[in-house]
Amino acid sequence: MTKVFLKKQIQNRVLLGHPWVFGNEVAEIKGDVTPGDIVEVFTHKGIFVGKGYINPQSQILVRILTRDRNEIINDEFFYQRILKCWQYRQKIGYVENCRLVFGEADDLPALVIDKFNDYFVIQTMALGIERWKDAIVAALNRIFQPKGIYERNDVPVRELEGMQQQKGFLSAPFDTNIIINENGLKFHVDIVNGQKTGYFLDQQDNRREIRNIVKGADVLEAFCYTGTFSCHAGYYGAKKVLGLDISETAIQTARRNATLNGLDDICKFEAINAFDQLKQWTKEEKKFDVVMLDPPAFTKSRENIQKAVAGYKEINLRGMKLLKPGGFLVTASCTNLVNPELFLQTIDAAARDAKKRLKQVTFQSQAQDHPILRNIDNTTYLKFLIVEVS
Amino acid sequence: MTKVFLKKQIQNRVLLGHPWVFGNEVAEIKGDVTPGDIVEVFTHKGIFVGKGYINPQSQILVRILTRDRNEIINDEFFYQRILKCWQYRQKIGYVENCRLVFGEADDLPALVIDKFNDYFVIQTMALGIERWKDAIVAALNRIFQPKGIYERNDVPVRELEGMQQQKGFLSAPFDTNIIINENGLKFHVDIVNGQKTGYFLDQQDNRREIRNIVKGADVLEAFCYTGTFSCHAGYYGAKKVLGLDISETAIQTARRNATLNGLDDICKFEAINAFDQLKQWTKEEKKFDVVMLDPPAFTKSRENIQKAVAGYKEINLRGMKLLKPGGFLVTASCTNLVNPELFLQTIDAAARDAKKRLKQVTFQSQAQDHPILRNIDNTTYLKFLIVEVS
Repeated sequence: MTKVFLKKQIQNRVLLGHPWVFGNEVAEIKGDVTPGDIVEVFTHKGIFVGKGYINPQSQILVRILTRDRNEIINDEFFYQRILKCWQYRQKIGYVENCRLVFGEADDLPALVIDKFNDYFVIQTMALGIERWKDAIVAALNRIFQPKGIYERNDVPVRELEGMQQQKGFLSAPFDTNIIINENGLKFHVDIVNGQKTGYFLDQQDNRREIRNIVKGADVLEAFCYTGTFSCHAGYYGAKKVLGLDISETAIQTARRNATLNGLDDICKFEAINAFDQLKQWTKEEKKFDVVMLDPPAFTKSRENIQKAVAGYKEINLRGMKLLKPGGFLVTASCTNLVNPELFLQTIDAAARDAKKRLKQVTFQSQAQDHPILRNIDNTTYLKFLIVEVS
Repeated sequence: MTKVFLKKQIQNRVLLGHPWVFGNEVAEIKGDVTPGDIVEVFTHKGIFVGKGYINPQSQILVRILTRDRNEIINDEFFYQRILKCWQYRQKIGYVENCRLVFGEADDLPALVIDKFNDYFVIQTMALGIERWKDAIVAALNRIFQPKGIYERNDVPVRELEGMQQQKGFLSAPFDTNIIINENGLKFHVDIVNGQKTGYFLDQQDNRREIRNIVKGADVLEAFCYTGTFSCHAGYYGAKKVLGLDISETAIQTARRNATLNGLDDICKFEAINAFDQLKQWTKEEKKFDVVMLDPPAFTKSRENIQKAVAGYKEINLRGMKLLKPGGFLVTASCTNLVNPELFLQTIDAAARDAKKRLKQVTFQSQAQDHPILRNIDNTTYLKFLIVEVS
């Protein structure tokens, strides 16, 4: 097996448990390099570190799959790993819908699998994991006997690995418009055309967090996408809810979600630019009891963090101004480039500019089925904050 | 009214909303200073900042009660403030038992009121708030018609304010051994002799967080006090639970709590030095599925932070070693001197020493009825972490 030797200086991160080996951290490679193959990684002194897959076309040269030299990477390996993921989700109470595999946090780098009751959506975002797709599908069939498996590999990051974007069935074709249960509500999931894998499971716990503050409230949600937070607000007793999103398709699904839950009278949706609308209504001094903001990632690159922060500050400032005294702001950010501390600082800065005082109700991260590895920085990618604004 | 003028340099903290004015931040006082009296605070330029109570004997010379010059500090003021606290708790869903008033976070500096269904426990920890105790009791009577009010002013911090420690009835005497409901369980609260106000309400939400991970588990709790986490573990389906605490009285109450919830067969308690026992069992390589650690504050002074951190690291290291692979560590720290980041770093350091890897299940702070003010540092005093250890 091909052997990769790390440089003397820069291996601590890897030795402390991070699965990524960057090209510039490698001193020497002994043996052939076939993209996607399993290789062994060693320190400069020749001490075994782990086994993983290699791709010279990627900045991340090797992603480590195991630190146990005796463990063989084969179909059975992937079955055992995915089974372990499932046992973990069962232990922490995520059974019907869950992120079954969350890549690096589950020792399966670049692999994402979402479980929507009997249906599974897969993303293989590196060449070395793509190679094992058949084994992964076989493992799912063996553990779950699913009604359907679908590949949502329409993600640009695949191109950095020299792969094409693609999507399609990995099982017999099935009706990809499904319905899932969440917190006592039902939601449409469009596996083929929904964002990412079709649904944002990472907010499934946070959607419950609004249950007390929305009672009897007049609620505005900007960037509502398919209206899941809005429907929760209606379900938990809001007087009325208005959801805004720029996507006409998302708004149509949001309306269908309201109908599905018998909330048509309470939850209304409008396809409109939420930025502009927040600005307009701030001018008009319109007021709500609760404002919810769950925007898409404002940045995907480190270069634009400042711009993203400015964007978060702007919408949160407007959100605060649209609240009656003692109203609640529900605000989230989903990019891992803005860490929890920076996110809170941004919200605090918005409060100073808006001359508002914030009392924290709760500050959360992603749902527990998207584990956070304590020895890997920045795996707390989702920030979710509720504050009373006065 | 006496006027206090701040120095030019050091008033930003106060202007940004912090209610404390330290003696060394004051340039000039115009008028008589009677300890406990209400005074007005101004910037060096004479701009009104707020009104609060003064005590030259305290390092905190003034604690601001209002930033509204027109607001009069009288009995009605305290009634309105406490009513507002109650309305807030109702809004966020804390009705039966709650910290009704959490001092600075509720704009009532140095005042704590805990509500245990129909009973109230009060702490007035500064001279300026002590003065209004009758008004506070009257407000409680007016809002709640309580069955009893008790004063737990047996806190050393009162001596820094030139007051005595004391405890006693602020209503007609009543049976101070009461029972409260929490998360479907019942617990004995000894209002007169229990720690602090008699019960740690700040963990009431976190006690629910163990519900999935303890199912069928062999659970150890060190520093179990009156066994509330242990009883929750039993209630949520643990196979067996062992709680350790050095206090014989606490252990007796823990056993009574187990009995009260029909958990005698599952939850056992032992009065023993938990430090020594953790050490001993680490040597013996005893193993559990879940280890819970909710120790008392290891420090109350800034000087001893390093010692406290060493203590947290030590017990968490032992906790990790006492776990089977894939077991769960439930760990908390209640001192505001160790901030959330330092707490997490300490746990991570323990993991490195124990050669364990941690997967975060949840990281929480105190229950929402102990609000966190975003513009005041370090109000996140409670840290509560669950990690899978492998």
